[in-house]
Amino acid sequence: MANKVEPRTLPGFMELLPNDQVKFNQMIQIIQNSYERFGFLPLDTPVIELSEVLLAKAGGETEKQIYRFTKGDSDLSLRFDLTVPLAKYVAEYYNDLTFPFKRYQIGKVYRGEKAQKGRYREFYQCDIDIIGDGELSIINDAQIPSIIYNTFKELGFDNFTICINNRKILNGLFKSLNLSDKATDILRIIDKIEKIGADAVKGELKTIDISSQAIDTIINFVSIDGNVDEKISKLKELNISDDTFNEGVQELSDVIKYIRFLKVPEGYFTVDLKIARGLDYYTGTVYETFLNDYRKIGSVCSGGRYDNLAEYYTDKKLPGVGISIGLTRLFYQLSQMDAIKVDKQSIADVLIIPMDSEFEECMKLASTLRMQANINTDIYFDDAKMKKKMKYADKWNIPFVIIIGEDERNTGLYTLKNMKTGEQLKLSAQDVIATIKKV
Amino acid sequence: MANKVEPRTLPGFMELLPNDQVKFNQMIQIIQNSYERFGFLPLDTPVIELSEVLLAKAGGETEKQIYRFTKGDSDLSLRFDLTVPLAKYVAEYYNDLTFPFKRYQIGKVYRGEKAQKGRYREFYQCDIDIIGDGELSIINDAQIPSIIYNTFKELGFDNFTICINNRKILNGLFKSLNLSDKATDILRIIDKIEKIGADAVKGELKTIDISSQAIDTIINFVSIDGNVDEKISKLKELNISDDTFNEGVQELSDVIKYIRFLKVPEGYFTVDLKIARGLDYYTGTVYETFLNDYRKIGSVCSGGRYDNLAEYYTDKKLPGVGISIGLTRLFYQLSQMDAIKVDKQSIADVLIIPMDSEFEECMKLASTLRMQANINTDIYFDDAKMKKKMKYADKWNIPFVIIIGEDERNTGLYTLKNMKTGEQLKLSAQDVIATIKKV
Repeated sequence: MANKVEPRTLPGFMELLPNDQVKFNQMIQIIQNSYERFGFLPLDTPVIELSEVLLAKAGGETEKQIYRFTKGDSDLSLRFDLTVPLAKYVAEYYNDLTFPFKRYQIGKVYRGEKAQKGRYREFYQCDIDIIGDGELSIINDAQIPSIIYNTFKELGFDNFTICINNRKILNGLFKSLNLSDKATDILRIIDKIEKIGADAVKGELKTIDISSQAIDTIINFVSIDGNVDEKISKLKELNISDDTFNEGVQELSDVIKYIRFLKVPEGYFTVDLKIARGLDYYTGTVYETFLNDYRKIGSVCSGGRYDNLAEYYTDKKLPGVGISIGLTRLFYQLSQMDAIKVDKQSIADVLIIPMDSEFEECMKLASTLRMQANINTDIYFDDAKMKKKMKYADKWNIPFVIIIGEDERNTGLYTLKNMKTGEQLKLSAQDVIATIKKV
Repeated sequence: MANKVEPRTLPGFMELLPNDQVKFNQMIQIIQNSYERFGFLPLDTPVIELSEVLLAKAGGETEKQIYRFTKGDSDLSLRFDLTVPLAKYVAEYYNDLTFPFKRYQIGKVYRGEKAQKGRYREFYQCDIDIIGDGELSIINDAQIPSIIYNTFKELGFDNFTICINNRKILNGLFKSLNLSDKATDILRIIDKIEKIGADAVKGELKTIDISSQAIDTIINFVSIDGNVDEKISKLKELNISDDTFNEGVQELSDVIKYIRFLKVPEGYFTVDLKIARGLDYYTGTVYETFLNDYRKIGSVCSGGRYDNLAEYYTDKKLPGVGISIGLTRLFYQLSQMDAIKVDKQSIADVLIIPMDSEFEECMKLASTLRMQANINTDIYFDDAKMKKKMKYADKWNIPFVIIIGEDERNTGLYTLKNMKTGEQLKLSAQDVIATIKKV
């Protein structure tokens, strides 16, 4: 073979070295465990779908990013999120499911975005959704922050805020101001208030032809402050006689009540009336989650309530509430700031190093550790200098090394080295197991 | 929305209902745990690669099956196995790794095969490989059957056979018969001996112009019988003075010796001199694994030793040994025969059912179960008849239901129903936890 192909990975596709992959996988495992802790069922839908099915709703910017191609006679596309496949799934298997249907899905999705640092074309989404058949109690909206709280706690974070709002409050407000036709524009503009400030927002609102009085009301409204209960009180005190508005306030108030029943500690959640979640998609409760020590990376877990999941596939009304964690981007951002909190460093708990080519003792010990003690055990079989073998343990962060030579075989005591402390002990197999298990 | 798109999944793409997905995921988890038990490191490479990179080696039938398309200026393909991405990875990150490099990867691969029952176009492969830098000790070849043994045991199987052979034995035999140029054809033909019988194999060998004497030698050779040690003795007694042949016999003999050191019980492995693994790819030890109660589904885990993993990308010589489990097809086949052995039936361990709309007690208990006792807990919040709520638990195989009404709130004793036995007990929270944990 004279001509070699240069081995390379496409830009925008994350590919990790093993030590990072161990951490990434642990984050996935924690998220999965947390979702399952709340009783969510797993789904795994195809990466490829018929374009007709996948793009039933899409359009504009999203459609341009799709990986779309033909194979034989089929017009195919790679999924760009996990929500459309869920809609398809629920409509397709409606009769095989029971509701409320609570599912999680953790998988890769594809968007041919412009390549830039921290933007990925293939990335993991970790989604949960609760889907009702015809209707879905508001209490489900309170479960979501409880799941977010549990998940980010388990991921090792302790300083984060789940921001909650309800789109009906905003929509009702606009209705009461006779600005419903401009709701989408207004939402888009006030969503920027943190970035550009109240004055710039006022300026932008003027450009879409809104009266100064209405602008003041809007700004005053999104500036309501205080703690959670004060905000809800102030909302009620506005005495806005719009049904949608009052429904939204009541829902928000219920959600807060139930979040407390679910023992999410005060300080981990708040009401943020500015949150609109740009999209038209959400119709009730909306969520954003911020790691307060890393606020600049934006929301790490967002979502909300929607009226109808699968209207493009079925006449059944299927309201739902859900959230998504974009794990690939989050992992990249946290890595950049050295803020990955999971503690798993290695796959193997111990590396067995034979001093010579008498492998029997090494192998038998390995089998005991693996099969009887459930200890992840690697053996370095190949011929190499001791220094190279120790470097192998070091490279993959393996916390213990067991060295076995003639002396060890004769005495039945193994040399166990703690790679962190450097401490070396001569121990029986049972003591080796106990020591490794303790760490 | 008047016009609905029919929600449907592409043929050849497995999509499971939740109860099956729970089992599928448990099989993945068991395989992953088993691979990690032996110290293998996780990898996760992109599904999409540059066609130039992915197809450096491919050709013929494989290339026709590739999902290949362009996006912008890029000629892209979906991976069709996990071996080529591994070769790319090891060549690309050679300097960041240390060897022997032991990795596992569990992921979806894509082949546009003709659609037929039990054949999938998107399917999971679960691969492990050990890659050496320049050389790789034969002892690694003995670790593989130990991993296969552990994996299938953990998957719940107890009657399976790992069949082992060494390609050098076959190649050496052909060399000694001056038939090396016909080795590939001969291997292809004798691979069929179980299916079509010795006479038909003889007939086919004649058609490629082999002398009767050589045919008899070949047939006698592949018919060597007895237990593992007898087969190896008989191989040695053939006194074939070919270096490759004798090297193969020695390697096979070593592998068997070390498999025993690794405590793989007799009866779970055997020598099968007929195994050639059709492909040109393997150069030494080869493996096939059969579930003896379901023999007709063919080998459930195959692989072997190869000389050079990444020759299309690098001048470095990287020998390796590995195996693959094609999980999607295996799951389908086992399901058809009702032979899935994993015991996990549900995600939630318990469903809490409120009798009325006083949710506080239910939610507090749920949080205790989830966060303090690590019990996966679902709550049925929505308004429905008790019968429908119980059916929900039934549908998702949830083993316990806790019913909470006024009586339960007053006494602090919860009604715990075992859904399998129908038994109902009034228990304190601590006894609820103990009872659920026991099952």
